[in-house]
Amino acid sequence: MVTSPWRAVPARPASVRRRGAVLERAILDAALEQLGTVGWKGLTMEGVAAGAQTGKAAVYRRWPSKEDLVVDALQAGLPRLEGVPDLGGVREDLLALCRQARDAMYSRPGHALRAVIHECDPTQVERFRGVIFAWVVEPTIKLLREVITRGIERGEVRGDAANGYVLDVIPAMMMYRSKMCASEWNDVDLEELIDLLMMPLLRPVAL
Amino acid sequence: MVTSPWRAVPARPASVRRRGAVLERAILDAALEQLGTVGWKGLTMEGVAAGAQTGKAAVYRRWPSKEDLVVDALQAGLPRLEGVPDLGGVREDLLALCRQARDAMYSRPGHALRAVIHECDPTQVERFRGVIFAWVVEPTIKLLREVITRGIERGEVRGDAANGYVLDVIPAMMMYRSKMCASEWNDVDLEELIDLLMMPLLRPVAL
Repeated sequence: MVTSPWRAVPARPASVRRRGAVLERAILDAALEQLGTVGWKGLTMEGVAAGAQTGKAAVYRRWPSKEDLVVDALQAGLPRLEGVPDLGGVREDLLALCRQARDAMYSRPGHALRAVIHECDPTQVERFRGVIFAWVVEPTIKLLREVITRGIERGEVRGDAANGYVLDVIPAMMMYRSKMCASEWNDVDLEELIDLLMMPLLRPVAL
Repeated sequence: MVTSPWRAVPARPASVRRRGAVLERAILDAALEQLGTVGWKGLTMEGVAAGAQTGKAAVYRRWPSKEDLVVDALQAGLPRLEGVPDLGGVREDLLALCRQARDAMYSRPGHALRAVIHECDPTQVERFRGVIFAWVVEPTIKLLREVITRGIERGEVRGDAANGYVLDVIPAMMMYRSKMCASEWNDVDLEELIDLLMMPLLRPVAL
């Protein structure tokens, strides 16, 4: 074996030592890393294997295609939104939920997910739609519905506000301004979103 | 020169016959066509030249990079939103504007633009942001502001409604549901958007 004199530390024979769940976790991590750096279209099974310091065969043995790999990487990595505690008012509840959503959006799996959403064409998006809806859209909408329903029960929110269009406003605005205006949704932006948009939208109809 | 016996009609020597504005138009059209079919990342100068039935040199002579070509193709092709006639009420005015925006969105240049928006990474998007804002976002927001201001003057709309968050709701919802739900925004969807979201958002505060 030829060794370079300047390579004092030999490459770690990672694929020999890691097995099963540990190696899988390293591969899924490397897939998220690739999505965040080179995006969906730039991601290759070779690149993921290199990132996980393993061989391509170890990746293909578990995931026959990059779609399969990315679906599992997103499912394993995406943070789940916690429930929203009842803070006593719809404004504070919505703010708490928006902060959670923003933090998830700018987490590493969040960046990876946005790469998938933005780069995939409609046919490819179909492959991911189930994951995106089950892990991101539906939990967010469910929490929004809870917060708005609590507001209705408190008499702060008009009774017919928990419909699909109202529930989609926050996700839609967050996606739109992040993409079109490169907004990072700092706390002031989130407060304005609630005070200038959601509160007027939700206020009860005067009798 | 070797001719194939089955090629009865010789390829049209297009690049010889078309010059100046006519050839430019053909190249820009071919660029929009490519964006609509293979997307931003799939678009190549070779592909555009082939689509325009000309040589690669004719394309590079006018546009040194695919960014330059796509900027010009979008500027030349995107339909301009017309003004919104005063239909007597904010609901009808908003519906008319949304129908125009929907038709532009699903035109060929609209598809091309969405390919650019969705596929470009943030650095590339910077290159197109000026075009997108000048040709799409700003004209739409300007018309929305006009329609909402007319509503305020009529007393149909609360006085503080013409703010940036309210003005972004329609573009954000149209982008979000087109991307995430593959909505094509038929007329019923647009009416629901106005009746379930915009009208409650805009209604005057009871005194």
